[in-house]
Amino acid sequence: MDEPQRARRPGGRSARVRAAVHQAVTELVGERGYSGFTVGEIAARAGVADTSIYRRWGNLENLLADVTNARLTARSPMPDTGSLSGDLHTYAANVAREITGPDGPAVLRLTIALSDMDEQGLRARDDFLAERSRQLQSMLDRAAERGEDPPDALDVLDHVMAPMYIRVLLGIGALTPDYIDGLVDRLLS
Amino acid sequence: MDEPQRARRPGGRSARVRAAVHQAVTELVGERGYSGFTVGEIAARAGVADTSIYRRWGNLENLLADVTNARLTARSPMPDTGSLSGDLHTYAANVAREITGPDGPAVLRLTIALSDMDEQGLRARDDFLAERSRQLQSMLDRAAERGEDPPDALDVLDHVMAPMYIRVLLGIGALTPDYIDGLVDRLLS
Repeated sequence: MDEPQRARRPGGRSARVRAAVHQAVTELVGERGYSGFTVGEIAARAGVADTSIYRRWGNLENLLADVTNARLTARSPMPDTGSLSGDLHTYAANVAREITGPDGPAVLRLTIALSDMDEQGLRARDDFLAERSRQLQSMLDRAAERGEDPPDALDVLDHVMAPMYIRVLLGIGALTPDYIDGLVDRLLS
Repeated sequence: MDEPQRARRPGGRSARVRAAVHQAVTELVGERGYSGFTVGEIAARAGVADTSIYRRWGNLENLLADVTNARLTARSPMPDTGSLSGDLHTYAANVAREITGPDGPAVLRLTIALSDMDEQGLRARDDFLAERSRQLQSMLDRAAERGEDPPDALDVLDHVMAPMYIRVLLGIGALTPDYIDGLVDRLLS
């Protein structure tokens, strides 16, 4: 009897399951890191059946990637300030806030955990990174359409994101506003 | 009866225990990552008593840092080519070879694992990084003594090591010789 009901109220039960599962995963990641729990534990905490999780996400790896992506997209949308410089400065500041916040460098920890799992983990990692890349590339494409000369997405990764990630991961050096702005200015110069 | 014997043959039994323990840790890290085993498992594989490990290293964190440092120092000694540019190009190529080799980005994975442990882990991480920094700083100091104008060690971290680490961790972009040389040339320009 579930299916017809769900079809009549799109976003009803389905959205509640998604929200409960996302919340359970977020809590478990906070408590145990990205590789310290099973689908069964997520299901128990969310109050849903294991099969509901497998039907919707296929495997644990895809679920972890989906949850992390949803949190990042909600909390750090790509900026659209009208200029390349404005977009990159805002983007860099958002990334810095995100990776020094309560979740820490979630993107990087997730990708490392997925890489250590198996083939499904690597596929989930690559899909996840492709989605983040696509968002960044859209921002750079808007600059090109305005007649600006944007850097490659890989240059943004190498010279803006990578230094911030490594400083946070190694616990070396602070991400001050001057430091972050300096990374972007250096890339654009 | 052990102690007087050890005192008479420094490096004998003591060196054998160290080698056996290092070998056991290296194998276990390869099989399970940095946080997948205990001191008891290391001791059993090395054929030594748990107490021998605690007496020498104090805790698992210090032992992990010691093993990683010993491997890196043996396999990637700091270059001394006579010029800053030569040293940095050689150093960057060594780091690239190391992080794409069989151990992968061992420094980074170790520091991440130690950060996730506890206060002892953070102390071991900071001691470990201080030692690696000291080695890099010596190389830069030699350049200054020759009258060259070396960058700060943190700039080397930000613009040479960080991009390579992040590319390897995310599985994005290749570390070609041209790419690696470009990172160093950009830093020195």
